Amino acid sequence: MAETGNTRAIVAPELQTSGWLNTPQPLTLAALKGKVVVLHTFQIFCPGCVQVGIPQAQRIYQEFDPNRVAVIGLHTVFEHHPVMGPDALEVFVHEYRLRFPIGIDKYDGQPQGVPLTMRAYQMQGTPTLILIDKNGYIRLHKFGHVSDLTVGFSIGALLSEETDESARVPEVGSNAENAACNADGCSV
Amino acid sequence: MAETGNTRAIVAPELQTSGWLNTPQPLTLAALKGKVVVLHTFQIFCPGCVQVGIPQAQRIYQEFDPNRVAVIGLHTVFEHHPVMGPDALEVFVHEYRLRFPIGIDKYDGQPQGVPLTMRAYQMQGTPTLILIDKNGYIRLHKFGHVSDLTVGFSIGALLSEETDESARVPEVGSNAENAACNADGCSV
Amino acid sequence: MAETGNTRAIVAPELQTSGWLNTPQPLTLAALKGKVVVLHTFQIFCPGCVQVGIPQAQRIYQEFDPNRVAVIGLHTVFEHHPVMGPDALEVFVHEYRLRFPIGIDKYDGQPQGVPLTMRAYQMQGTPTLILIDKNGYIRLHKFGHVSDLTVGFSIGALLSEETDESARVPEVGSNAENAACNADGCSV
Amino acid sequence: MAETGNTRAIVAPELQTSGWLNTPQPLTLAALKGKVVVLHTFQIFCPGCVQVGIPQAQRIYQEFDPNRVAVIGLHTVFEHHPVMGPDALEVFVHEYRLRFPIGIDKYDGQPQGVPLTMRAYQMQGTPTLILIDKNGYIRLHKFGHVSDLTVGFSIGALLSEETDESARVPEVGSNAENAACNADGCSV
Repeated sequence: MAETGNTRAIVAPELQTSGWLNTPQPLTLAALKGKVVVLHTFQIFCPGCVQVGIPQAQRIYQEFDPNRVAVIGLHTVFEHHPVMGPDALEVFVHEYRLRFPIGIDKYDGQPQGVPLTMRAYQMQGTPTLILIDKNGYIRLHKFGHVSDLTVGFSIGALLSEETDESARVPEVGSNAENAACNADGCSV
Repeated sequence: MAETGNTRAIVAPELQTSGWLNTPQPLTLAALKGKVVVLHTFQIFCPGCVQVGIPQAQRIYQEFDPNRVAVIGLHTVFEHHPVMGPDALEVFVHEYRLRFPIGIDKYDGQPQGVPLTMRAYQMQGTPTLILIDKNGYIRLHKFGHVSDLTVGFSIGALLSEETDESARVPEVGSNAENAACNADGCSV
Repeated sequence: MAETGNTRAIVAPELQTSGWLNTPQPLTLAALKGKVVVLHTFQIFCPGCVQVGIPQAQRIYQEFDPNRVAVIGLHTVFEHHPVMGPDALEVFVHEYRLRFPIGIDKYDGQPQGVPLTMRAYQMQGTPTLILIDKNGYIRLHKFGHVSDLTVGFSIGALLSEETDESARVPEVGSNAENAACNADGCSV
Repeated sequence: MAETGNTRAIVAPELQTSGWLNTPQPLTLAALKGKVVVLHTFQIFCPGCVQVGIPQAQRIYQEFDPNRVAVIGLHTVFEHHPVMGPDALEVFVHEYRLRFPIGIDKYDGQPQGVPLTMRAYQMQGTPTLILIDKNGYIRLHKFGHVSDLTVGFSIGALLSEETDESARVPEVGSNAENAACNADGCSV
């Protein structure tokens, strides 16, 4: 599952949203610095999201300390826009009893249909799981399913890292000591 | 799932075995220093072991780099000794296609039936999962089932730690920064 | 799981629909006489339907001969009408790759929200599974989950019955020979 | 899943056993005439039996009326005889909390290792599921896994049949009305 090809960690682009559920005010990655961020992107009519991704996000939200690990859902609608609006999302979140904050990826009406955050991260589809370290760098970016072992491992490795805004981001290949990259769970 | 009550990490007692499968020579914890050790104890007629614990051990063995994470099975027979001998274990391992090294916990024939390693670790039963850090200290000790998220997290946290034979073992409570202890996955 | 309290089989009320998917023309129970009908009612934002009921309906559709067993889905929207319209249903059916005919239960805009067929059958909610025998009588009516063993058993028992339009419908209690009623799967 | 190739129902050979568990006295098919018999054959070190077949047999035993459906386990050891003796079976049955009657297929020590009942039925391996109708004829004989839908269907169809010792056994092909043979669940 190792993400390969990148030789340099990428700063996670800020979320661009048009609304939020399960949070009194919009979340920003900037304000979450110091926490490990688990960003789970999905669509409400995507079977792999509903049957595998969403339940995994719920387990992560239930097992980890919210003061150290921020689980965020992001509704990245890139098809069938008319039936996946905020009102449908709200019903879905209510019926599935989701409790973690969920943002709505901003859509500018472009014909290709892909919303802004999804475009900024160059996601391939849904579900996509993204792990962001305490310093705001993308450390795992995976389209499709990721095993609980790998997600847990990656969170454990990222939590163990020092927080240091000025820290040089390690380059893969030159840094065999980077635990997050050795069990195929962390990219870059 | 946090293991509580201990205030000091315990050095993992050496394995006491009467035989091994899937390894050309007996394994010792002493020789595994520098690796994180996943010790999965089981009995071949224990339903929770066969249906949950053994499949998890197989997943760990398949997902992690054996140079950094050593998965070891330990057949800790504490009941029904006559039908769980080495020949039965061998058939079980063959039929279930297990590939990781499996030791046989040494039994001295005492009437209470508990073998030596199981006694030294004060295990409550099977399955029991034990995680040992690179310096040889027990960091998780759990009877029953542990989620893949927690096991993965704990391995990730332990792999991230420095190897240092002379390192003072942190005491729980005085060390709020110890990542391995904060998502209920690692004890000390 | 035995359905109790009824002492007389009920003729299955005709379906009242406002549209259909996966069929060139509307289906009627009248035209399905001679087949066993498996009517699976659901809503697209009902977790129990999406995770358990719909997959079971798909298995039934795949395992049984469509010339003898008619699997029909019925979208019985009784809440959140604005986001569960025909366009949303169509996206759902497309994304989940459902192939069996699915009707849309007709809704007359009454404030309590329950559509016409759902009202006629006095269903309690979704998912509801209804089995109708070759002569058009309701023989199982169950809200919630029904095991595959019970569904399979009931279909087997109903298929074995003679088709006879003039047949007297057996009363439960007076008819110990009625196989469909003895393994807790079929009501009358 | 249809069993094909046979053109004539076969009378189920009598069980040949060397012992029984969970029953005060040995069972015979002769004495079970009038009931549908579910014969589940297994070995205690066969993963497919332990993880799939045995749990299915337990579900059948729990869901159906024992006065109409007899669930019988048969330990058909054809390999590793020394470690799968009666004492090991007894521990297995105790630990897995199995409650249905389990016979031990009689072994005459022949070098090829196959016990007598297994040989008489020409079974290919374990798990094998065999359904015997009320008149004592084999109606389903399947090596490997059978879905709950199919097992349930077949039991439902067989229960619906009349008991008649003198009944002519239907030939497949000439009897399109035989419900037990049309949903791919019943052979012969």
